[in-house]
Amino acid sequence: MIEYRNLRIALLGAGSVGSQVARLLLEQGEELASRVGAGLELIGIAVRDVDAPRDADLPRELFTTDARTLIQSADVVIELMGGIEPAREYILLAINSGADVVTGNKALLATHGPELFDAAAQVGAQLYYEAAAGGAIPIIRPLRDSLAGDRVRRVMGIVNGTTNFILDRMDTEGDTFESALATATALGYAEADPTADVEGYDAAQKAAILASLAFHTAVPVEAVHREGITSITAGEVEAAKRAGFVVKLLAICERLTDAQTGVEGVSVRVHPALISRLHPLAAVHGAKNAVFVQAEAAGDLMFYGAGAGGLETASAVLGDLVSAARRHVAGGPGVGESTHANLPIFGIGAVNTRYQITLQVTDKPGVLAQVAGLFSEHSVSVEAVQQTVASAEPGRSPGEALTATLVIVTHEAPEAALSATVAAVSSNDAVVRVESVLRVEGDTP
Amino acid sequence: MIEYRNLRIALLGAGSVGSQVARLLLEQGEELASRVGAGLELIGIAVRDVDAPRDADLPRELFTTDARTLIQSADVVIELMGGIEPAREYILLAINSGADVVTGNKALLATHGPELFDAAAQVGAQLYYEAAAGGAIPIIRPLRDSLAGDRVRRVMGIVNGTTNFILDRMDTEGDTFESALATATALGYAEADPTADVEGYDAAQKAAILASLAFHTAVPVEAVHREGITSITAGEVEAAKRAGFVVKLLAICERLTDAQTGVEGVSVRVHPALISRLHPLAAVHGAKNAVFVQAEAAGDLMFYGAGAGGLETASAVLGDLVSAARRHVAGGPGVGESTHANLPIFGIGAVNTRYQITLQVTDKPGVLAQVAGLFSEHSVSVEAVQQTVASAEPGRSPGEALTATLVIVTHEAPEAALSATVAAVSSNDAVVRVESVLRVEGDTP
Repeated sequence: MIEYRNLRIALLGAGSVGSQVARLLLEQGEELASRVGAGLELIGIAVRDVDAPRDADLPRELFTTDARTLIQSADVVIELMGGIEPAREYILLAINSGADVVTGNKALLATHGPELFDAAAQVGAQLYYEAAAGGAIPIIRPLRDSLAGDRVRRVMGIVNGTTNFILDRMDTEGDTFESALATATALGYAEADPTADVEGYDAAQKAAILASLAFHTAVPVEAVHREGITSITAGEVEAAKRAGFVVKLLAICERLTDAQTGVEGVSVRVHPALISRLHPLAAVHGAKNAVFVQAEAAGDLMFYGAGAGGLETASAVLGDLVSAARRHVAGGPGVGESTHANLPIFGIGAVNTRYQITLQVTDKPGVLAQVAGLFSEHSVSVEAVQQTVASAEPGRSPGEALTATLVIVTHEAPEAALSATVAAVSSNDAVVRVESVLRVEGDTP
Repeated sequence: MIEYRNLRIALLGAGSVGSQVARLLLEQGEELASRVGAGLELIGIAVRDVDAPRDADLPRELFTTDARTLIQSADVVIELMGGIEPAREYILLAINSGADVVTGNKALLATHGPELFDAAAQVGAQLYYEAAAGGAIPIIRPLRDSLAGDRVRRVMGIVNGTTNFILDRMDTEGDTFESALATATALGYAEADPTADVEGYDAAQKAAILASLAFHTAVPVEAVHREGITSITAGEVEAAKRAGFVVKLLAICERLTDAQTGVEGVSVRVHPALISRLHPLAAVHGAKNAVFVQAEAAGDLMFYGAGAGGLETASAVLGDLVSAARRHVAGGPGVGESTHANLPIFGIGAVNTRYQITLQVTDKPGVLAQVAGLFSEHSVSVEAVQQTVASAEPGRSPGEALTATLVIVTHEAPEAALSATVAAVSSNDAVVRVESVLRVEGDTP
């Protein structure tokens, strides 16, 4: 049945994903070949150190340190090295040598995506990257192809497993951030240096990739507003729980209209936020990921699955490899980048959102009215206020005023107005301390 | 920027989906054109009655009753008429006239899929059908492309909105089947003749399509074991709730190995089943749909969204149209049907599942041992038995024995053994009545 010559596959990198890709290619090569209509021959694996330990038992003769020579004899190059250089140089070399490319490199795509897509378009090469966002979850093809006839309004995702694991522990076990992080590290869900995850850099890269696809607009990672989860306290998580919310690190990509100018654009941001416990994203536990998409015609969609893991992510890479190989056999160029909309990219100030603000105030008559006045001065409408019983402020000397806790949830308002309100509130004499400021996202179903 | 000539689009059918497709094509044509790199010109809509009322306000001059002439001047034909004939004839005519085809016709694909795929492959035409299963939910591309490098073990889906609405009402409101169906009809979630939905015919067609894709094996709808939900009682739903389960109509496509022969094959079935309330599918409420996929490398994935609705389904159709049009512009044939695995298709007897069996038994010593003996004789292992306090059987004459309720949950066992056990149990003298036999599906997370 198979008449087409073997396709020559080169793999760059043999880390946790790369070694699984190599293993599956060797073990299930025949099955994949019958799906493609041509054999898939793994001709080599380029690594820095041929003798480094690997997650899978792979034939030693496949390994090489000479990536350039390997790339130049391949039909499809799979880049799983990570990092910017030499990954960028190698992908450009592959494209210019006539190979198709599969990559899972989110950092590279989020910073140099347009350069790579342009290079591929010049020569009609294919560039697939399902593994770069959402791990095993098929989210790139749904956004690029299935929703290509629709207008996406909003993408809201839990796209980092480490932070979801930590926040889920804080929610279900009452852990502090530090103790949940320690557990994540012990179980292998967090790296020795967890900065990229807990500070939201990893999520911001994925957000840039998803937004670019969803809005047909190249969104560089520098345009993504980013806040991490290191300052989230056990008290905030507990208070959220009592109020029917859960704290999640969300990547939010929105199409919106600037209120001042009337210009339509997009906004992309990553930050912790409260969402209703009834929202489908609230049920995403542990290190799982999910992406919630709202489109004009399709309505609400959700994609759920493993956002990381060597074996899981290998599934996405091999799916791309089969697509690239099928197209290689059938002929015809790949689907190019779609950036025709080229919408302006707004900063966080243009976003409309809700806030939950927790204040310690002196327990005197008129304080609530004073605070409420500050919201109204900034045109921020208050949805609900909860004042808890006056409590003794620690270290309070006798005779000093008691304090009360105010939890204020606002209606949707521009971020700029909300942050100005918080600034005004925190410098008010009656306010002892601003305990917490958290955004509230997602409709309550 | 656009240099390619306009692509000529013919639409067959202007029902709830077709009229939305036509409206969006006319309203958002420029936006779609810039995604394709060519204009998309709706050249006509073939209908039986030009003057019938439509869901959208469409230019009268587009309508025609001459489908054949329309088809023969089109680049892409969108078939949304439903039914077998003349839809089948028209699609073959389109393919043989050199057009690409987009269809949402699940009945046709589930019965004549291979004929249509063969015809398309002969001439290198494209045949897309994202709207045929799961409505707006992108599930066809993920199965066909994203998971093409993986091995799918199991697809378990809620793929019919009408029955999910009814079962959800029974679960949340305590409605009977009849009353929940009446509500579904009143709200437009059920058709005047609900047979296709409540008897599982619609779900069986979608199951055949999903199984064919997932297992690279043509599965005709006749091979799908099908049971509807008309016999589900309020009592069963209530009892399931108390036990931590919810009743859902599930479409289950499994890769399994026949215990007798050791042969690997697939099994496809549609029936009501109990699933744990902690399973992600348990949270799918109202008329929503979701498909849960278990793959060897990717692990657990879930796809959630609107499974029906004219506007929602139009999103899937237009996504296919953009794909077909992009390929038309870029060149190269479509992705063909993948049936290389060609696995045998097993009947329901080969399936392993769990059962929950509810019995009324006479409340005498030794009955439980007797019943348990029948399970053991058929090699069906019992996971749990719950015996509720003896209750008076209605109409019981004084002196007659009291009855007790036994709820037995089995471990996984072959369907054949389970049904033989149920037969033996129901003919046992100590058993007054078999109240309910329901399968239990899905791992308890």
